[in-house]
Amino acid sequence: MTVHPGCPFCEGPGGRVVFEGAKVRVIHAEEVGFPAFYRVIWREHAPEFSDLDAADRVLCMEAVTVVEQCLREQLKPTKINLAALGNMVPHLHWHVIARFEWDSHFPSPFWAAAQRAAPVDRVADVQALLPKLEAEMVRRLALLQD
Amino acid sequence: MTVHPGCPFCEGPGGRVVFEGAKVRVIHAEEVGFPAFYRVIWREHAPEFSDLDAADRVLCMEAVTVVEQCLREQLKPTKINLAALGNMVPHLHWHVIARFEWDSHFPSPFWAAAQRAAPVDRVADVQALLPKLEAEMVRRLALLQD
Repeated sequence: MTVHPGCPFCEGPGGRVVFEGAKVRVIHAEEVGFPAFYRVIWREHAPEFSDLDAADRVLCMEAVTVVEQCLREQLKPTKINLAALGNMVPHLHWHVIARFEWDSHFPSPFWAAAQRAAPVDRVADVQALLPKLEAEMVRRLALLQD
Repeated sequence: MTVHPGCPFCEGPGGRVVFEGAKVRVIHAEEVGFPAFYRVIWREHAPEFSDLDAADRVLCMEAVTVVEQCLREQLKPTKINLAALGNMVPHLHWHVIARFEWDSHFPSPFWAAAQRAAPVDRVADVQALLPKLEAEMVRRLALLQD
């Protein structure tokens, strides 16, 4: 795998590693106030989604889907937000964010201005569910053709 | 196709229609200062990406990929941004945005605060390329199994 010097997703994991497959890595993003914010990082350095061939695009989005499904099933979020932006770090990574009506930005996107402080008890309630959620996520990610 | 009352993507096209297939619609979003901002809207009302079955997820992302590839080939943007958020309109739609170093927000996301005014001549240059770009986009979208 080619490492691009200076690319944080080539040179390091980019967060707390939850799953490392042959082609995708899933990390917990550890963004304050967003307890269930994961990133699906394509391990090979590729700036854009369409740099992947068709089979790899399917694999990548099936990994995103597994993360989304685990968040939905175990946290019952108000909404899931998916995004691949990469303006600052042009190495393909998908943000998968469980959004709640009580979170600091809802209904605005994570990247907009905060509207309120996130209630610490609600954040803690979600955090307490992560070990079980991540165990199931890893189990399902390992079943993908990766 | 079930129409959800009050849903803008069930009750209307949601923008200038570029392509209408059996399952996906592509519209030009007409966001000021972002001349190459398209949305791939799943025609059936589905809040989340993982509400689609595996075959439909592939079709949906192949449509997103066609839009992305046409933007890349014909506009050479600095970056493509992809996002499915839906906090305000929970009907699956993918934002596909060509981003440029000169645009009003770069490198921040579209949803963050503007950093500058978009130069009108650069915006006009991109707009002039859209008819050819959209003709090619429609040609390729029609080839998908939709």
